[in-house]
Parts: sequence; structure tokens; C-alpha cells
Amino acid sequence: MTQQKALVLFGHGARDERWKEPFLKLQELIAQDSNVRVELSFLELMSPSLPEVVDQLAIEGFKTIEVIPVFFGQGGHIRKDFPAILDACRNKHPEIQLSAKPAVGEDLGVLQAIAKYCAN
Amino acid sequence: MTQQKALVLFGHGARDERWKEPFLKLQELIAQDSNVRVELSFLELMSPSLPEVVDQLAIEGFKTIEVIPVFFGQGGHIRKDFPAILDACRNKHPEIQLSAKPAVGEDLGVLQAIAKYCAN
Repeated sequence: MTQQKALVLFGHGARDERWKEPFLKLQELIAQDSNVRVELSFLELMSPSLPEVVDQLAIEGFKTIEVIPVFFGQGGHIRKDFPAILDACRNKHPEIQLSAKPAVGEDLGVLQAIAKYCAN
Repeated sequence: MTQQKALVLFGHGARDERWKEPFLKLQELIAQDSNVRVELSFLELMSPSLPEVVDQLAIEGFKTIEVIPVFFGQGGHIRKDFPAILDACRNKHPEIQLSAKPAVGEDLGVLQAIAKYCAN
């Protein structure tokens, strides 16, 4: 059976496990509204890493994976670390179409929702 | 003249100046839809700091300041660093009513907007 596309949210990670809560809620919200597989991954301090998640999805036969960086700003993590991690995943799994969206902080709808929260 | 309330967005900060772009857009969006003063502040690596912004707003006569942490998760920065900074600001400026919202990642509307971006 051909697997559906998978989405992988990519966050920074933190020492405090409770930092992950909004990511778990996001995963739930996206899964509710679509039938795609949604996984979480982290740059540091939390697991799983993005390569670990891509490895697992590859084992399960997913051929299309889209990664969404759940970061506000595009600094060194998104401009340097993230492309290097993606490249390594692509080299390891040439059979997978691995794409990435801009960071969520680039989306006007997201910024408008934050602005609304701030102003209320 | 009594000054209006001021909003201060509080972000992590990064070495790359371009990291600040979504925060500048947020500032613009909030200012468009309200007539409150909106300032940016950062925990580290970028300036101004939150105490610097509060000092400036105090000089200008603002009596009510609301701080909004523009963070997804609530880890050590929000649970430990942020309350300590707020307490220091309150001790220095007892004349100001200084309040803080939960991090933007706690808001369902914000998470729904991110989920929508991820799923599209």
C-alpha cells in the first residue's frame, strides 16, 4: 500500500519537558483536520531528532515528507542548521521526496493570530 | 496627559539580525489595529532588553504595561528567567502596573493558525 504524505514539525527543543506542550497540541489539531501522519522532531535538547523521524517514516514506506519549522524567526538554526540536516536526510533517503516550508513565523495568518492575541 | 497602555513583545533574540523580521511585522500589525504603543524586547543576543524598554516607557509616563512573551513553549526562559526579569522591573518601577500574558503558544487561536499553515 502506498503511504500518504507525512508532515514533520521541527521545533527547537528545551530542557523542560513541558516546553513541548504546544507542539503536542499542534500535532493533535493538524491530525484532527487532515488524515496525514504528523510527527514532532527537535533540533536539540529533546527527542526525537528530525533524522530519527525521517528514518522511521522511511521504514514505514512514506515517500513524501514535508517539514515545517515551528520557529518564529529565521536565524542561524533555520538558515544553517536546518538545511544541513535536511541535506543529510536527503542523502540518506534519496527515495523520499523531502520538502520544507518556510518557518511558521513567515506566515501572515500566523502573525495575524498572534497580533490578535496580543491586542486582546 | 495620561498615557495609554503600552504593549511589550518579549522574544528570545538571536545572533542573526534577520531573526527579528517577524517581530517587526507583528509590531506593525498590532499597531495598525489599535492605538496602543507597541515595543519589542529580547531576552538575549538582541537589544533592547525588557528592563530597558520598561525604563523608557516609565520615562515617557506610561502607567500600564502588558508584556507578551512571543515564545511557543513554556520552558526555563518563561518559567524562570521571565518572572525574575518582571519582578526586577516591578521593584524598580512600583508606579507602573506591569502585567504579563501567557506565552503566545498557549493561545488556541495561534495554534489553530499554525495548524492551518502546516496542513496547507
